[in-house]
Amino acid sequence: MIEVKIIGLEEDLNLKAEFSDNLLSFLQKNDIEVDANCGGNGVCGKCKVKVKGEVSDVKIKERDLLSKLELERGIRLACLTTIEGDIEVELISEGRSTLRILDEGDEDELHLEPLIQKDYLELEEPTLEDQASDWTRINREFDEELKVNLDILNKLPDILRNAEYNITVVRRNGQAIGIEPSDTTDFNYGLAFDIGTTTVVGYLLDLTTGEQVGKVAMANRQSDYGSDAISRVNHAIQGETGRNDLQDRIIKVINQIIVELIDKYQIEKERIYELVFVGNTIMNHLLLGLKADNVAKSPYVSVINEPQMVPANKLGIDLGQNASVTYLPNVASYVGSDIVAGLLTTRIDQSSDLKLLVDLGTNSEIVLGNQDRMIACAAAAGPAFEGAEIEFGMNGVEGAIEEVRINDELEISVIGNQPAKGICGSGIISLLAELLKKGIINKTGKVLSVEEMDDSVPQVIKDAIIEEGNNRKIILVNAKEAANGEPVTISQKDIRAIQLAQGAIKAGIKILMSELGVESKDISEVLIAGGFGNYIQPQDAVTIGVLPTSPEIKIKGIGNAAGSGAKAAILSQEKRKIAKEIAEKVDYLELSGRQDFQNEFMSSMSFEKFE
Amino acid sequence: MIEVKIIGLEEDLNLKAEFSDNLLSFLQKNDIEVDANCGGNGVCGKCKVKVKGEVSDVKIKERDLLSKLELERGIRLACLTTIEGDIEVELISEGRSTLRILDEGDEDELHLEPLIQKDYLELEEPTLEDQASDWTRINREFDEELKVNLDILNKLPDILRNAEYNITVVRRNGQAIGIEPSDTTDFNYGLAFDIGTTTVVGYLLDLTTGEQVGKVAMANRQSDYGSDAISRVNHAIQGETGRNDLQDRIIKVINQIIVELIDKYQIEKERIYELVFVGNTIMNHLLLGLKADNVAKSPYVSVINEPQMVPANKLGIDLGQNASVTYLPNVASYVGSDIVAGLLTTRIDQSSDLKLLVDLGTNSEIVLGNQDRMIACAAAAGPAFEGAEIEFGMNGVEGAIEEVRINDELEISVIGNQPAKGICGSGIISLLAELLKKGIINKTGKVLSVEEMDDSVPQVIKDAIIEEGNNRKIILVNAKEAANGEPVTISQKDIRAIQLAQGAIKAGIKILMSELGVESKDISEVLIAGGFGNYIQPQDAVTIGVLPTSPEIKIKGIGNAAGSGAKAAILSQEKRKIAKEIAEKVDYLELSGRQDFQNEFMSSMSFEKFE
Repeated sequence: MIEVKIIGLEEDLNLKAEFSDNLLSFLQKNDIEVDANCGGNGVCGKCKVKVKGEVSDVKIKERDLLSKLELERGIRLACLTTIEGDIEVELISEGRSTLRILDEGDEDELHLEPLIQKDYLELEEPTLEDQASDWTRINREFDEELKVNLDILNKLPDILRNAEYNITVVRRNGQAIGIEPSDTTDFNYGLAFDIGTTTVVGYLLDLTTGEQVGKVAMANRQSDYGSDAISRVNHAIQGETGRNDLQDRIIKVINQIIVELIDKYQIEKERIYELVFVGNTIMNHLLLGLKADNVAKSPYVSVINEPQMVPANKLGIDLGQNASVTYLPNVASYVGSDIVAGLLTTRIDQSSDLKLLVDLGTNSEIVLGNQDRMIACAAAAGPAFEGAEIEFGMNGVEGAIEEVRINDELEISVIGNQPAKGICGSGIISLLAELLKKGIINKTGKVLSVEEMDDSVPQVIKDAIIEEGNNRKIILVNAKEAANGEPVTISQKDIRAIQLAQGAIKAGIKILMSELGVESKDISEVLIAGGFGNYIQPQDAVTIGVLPTSPEIKIKGIGNAAGSGAKAAILSQEKRKIAKEIAEKVDYLELSGRQDFQNEFMSSMSFEKFE
Repeated sequence: MIEVKIIGLEEDLNLKAEFSDNLLSFLQKNDIEVDANCGGNGVCGKCKVKVKGEVSDVKIKERDLLSKLELERGIRLACLTTIEGDIEVELISEGRSTLRILDEGDEDELHLEPLIQKDYLELEEPTLEDQASDWTRINREFDEELKVNLDILNKLPDILRNAEYNITVVRRNGQAIGIEPSDTTDFNYGLAFDIGTTTVVGYLLDLTTGEQVGKVAMANRQSDYGSDAISRVNHAIQGETGRNDLQDRIIKVINQIIVELIDKYQIEKERIYELVFVGNTIMNHLLLGLKADNVAKSPYVSVINEPQMVPANKLGIDLGQNASVTYLPNVASYVGSDIVAGLLTTRIDQSSDLKLLVDLGTNSEIVLGNQDRMIACAAAAGPAFEGAEIEFGMNGVEGAIEEVRINDELEISVIGNQPAKGICGSGIISLLAELLKKGIINKTGKVLSVEEMDDSVPQVIKDAIIEEGNNRKIILVNAKEAANGEPVTISQKDIRAIQLAQGAIKAGIKILMSELGVESKDISEVLIAGGFGNYIQPQDAVTIGVLPTSPEIKIKGIGNAAGSGAKAAILSQEKRKIAKEIAEKVDYLELSGRQDFQNEFMSSMSFEKFE
């Protein structure tokens, strides 16, 4: 056996490996988190670790993805490295991120009508004159005839007698799901979860007061199998083990969040009776352990979109015995319950004005409509806005440039106020908007040569242009000021990748507008949901032409509207009903295979304003 | 380890025992059936085995319960025998019985409206124009919104595609419980079970035609822990293991019956979707694994009487994945769903005439009423009518005297037409009726001395009287003609035990009559359910005064009305609803602690006619 020492965690670990183990797989198998956005395919270059000892030689792909400096420091990509003898692996910050988490959404007013109900009963003891069975004694206190399962009936005689017939009945949908000794009506909790591709946020709600007790966010550890949903599906379709891997990862995160919540707020987990989650359709399937194979391939068919109630313990979610898990409905394979939750929060379905909801990401969901009609589509933007496919692209974590302004010089704002490592989505959009406005790139996306630039372009920018073969670059942060000792740049190639992304989104919006026969001026509001919503400057998105504009349009981020929708749903049965109506009301347009979409896409890739 | 060789089964067995193992427990642990009506308490003397080798000395109790002849042959009572070295145990017919089984009841006309419904669907394949999820594709074919569980959803994508979208949906109560490839609508089966204390009968029903495919009966192997329900409860209340023992025994019998039925009739067990059982309240609790402790002690409270639906696999019943088990309602702790099933078969609740239903046994259930009102009680008759507490008493199995007539001589009829081993309930009742009529015993139950007898008593009877201390006996079969080489007798002591039993039943009936303010002449029919119903001669029961009589009363056995009720319930939801209404309509009178019952009991013990 080969010895592997892991350093860089709270405590060092000593593990055993086999000769020729792949290093990334080995780390994942041992529950060590490493970024692997591309799913370990040697594409994203994120799974950086520092290795000493006997490993395979540096591969050509690694030379492409790692800087000379990094290679000299002994940094390797775990996915391309094979263990060949005893080694020491140092986990470094570049390969492991504390994510910046977005979890506040615009919330609708409180509507408290939880599915779980608790009633305290002081019952009479049985006598020869009143021989009602234990269950009849309870059931006759209610107007409806309750159902009850064997697990409860098993314990019922002892609970009743030990509690001297003073008990609390927990009900859900005409079913008794708990008989608790004494009066526990004040302790009735539920969980709302927003299962993001990157981040999972859990909210603990008090179902008697409607108050949020607390929230905890964690990275979605499915990222071990790829940063985007499709990479994960590609792992999941490798038989049942693959599916189990992904379900296991997300359930672990959910259980960790539950443990943190109950520890922090001193809640008994047996008093949490329900969990409602939202997420995109793939996350939904992976969490439930359902086959997502057909979601990923044409004609893109999910197993189920309608909400079902699932026993929490069936999923391995560690709550009380009869706790249940449900979810809001999905609209289609690429418009999931997170979007429905967003609609439940923003209630576009009740608006007389036309509104546009966009959730920018690898799969960008777009909904356009009002009380009369709502239509939706999904634009396959690719991961450029999330930092992948961009040389210095990264998630919105510490060290990422999140905003750029060009005045006399190039000013940047870095998350965590530290030396820059790269640039995240909101940074890219603000950078492009500035480059366009200052005439450093043109509407076709071309980075101008110094010669082509106006005199108004500051000299510092001109000095930052470097030519690298066909790939002209702009240095954003020079080597001395950058975190990793090498300059952070944006290249012509990066910009082309972003153009593809923005072209897809813009074309999607245009198709919806043409379907409804409306123009930009008819839209009253553009609502930006999800990760970007609260971070990008709406004006930047308008400048690069990804979002429509008119004098009347208000553009606003709505934060984590998905989380807010999930919270509304755990608090209110009525809200779940509305969510279902919304999901049924939204017409989904499949863009793939549509010629009009192809045409729009081709003509949308320039940075022309969207009017 | 000690070697134990078991002979007398189809194949000999070689087992290992520990020093000082109790022989009965050892046999039961190894799934070897031995009669043990008293639950292994050294009282009933039924657990006879022939033993060679090192075992404990013969105990005094064994000397009381075994004949000299038996002791000489090496016969021992397993419950009183301890293993002390290598032994050979021969299983002999006296300790193991093939039961005579009663399973036909008067059946109401067929009412076919099964809970389980099957629909064959030929669905369109999904396209980009119709991306409905797999589940929506199915669900939209139905008017109601079906629920579905994860297990089905898990397999759904493959089933749909492999079956080229031609599938059969199995529904129960608005829930899809199966998606089957191709058209399986012709294969829809259900099971009805009558769980008797002695015998379990399983009926396989075709739910599309309503036909009975077949039936299988087996002994209730809970008899390992006592022949009567209370002995079994006494074992069950010894913690969870005791409860598991009893549940395990009955589930094993059910599974054996299922295997026999599906083998014999070539049915796939996955096409059996539901099982409905009836039984007394204790059988109900033991089968469900519920605590029966409080059923057995005052104020006699069951855990539940209302039917619930339980997953078959939760109970260990080996059917398809989503098969369910339910039961008809119980009225009270001592009037169970078997009686409700009997009422469902006889529909006393719809009768304008007053009817009396009695189910004679250790616990004798009695229902009196008509469409206006039904009242019920349970009389603790003790096991005399079932052969226990009677020296030569036995169950209605081969070798039991089942009828006696006294003309010039004493004529007997033996089950299986073989030498008599003892006498069963119907034999006892006909014997007593004959003894009374011929003046061999008087109304007080006293066996007259030869001197006291009339001249009309045949000499053969007078010759059969023997005096054994205070216990005068009548020889029914002499030693030469009896199976075991010793005479079969009935004694004064035996008759006293039967008087207690009949007194309790008669008093119970009288209390109900007085509660309704009616007399014998007001009763139109007496219906005798259960084991006795079809075997006793009604006139004998009238002669000994246990059942009321009048010129108008018709007395008839209704066979296994409980089984018929269970069959009606598996075939029809409507019948289940009626069963529930019946159970709610019956008023239960608790006899224990009632002074009027005590008084009636004291005055009912004589063999006076019940007029």
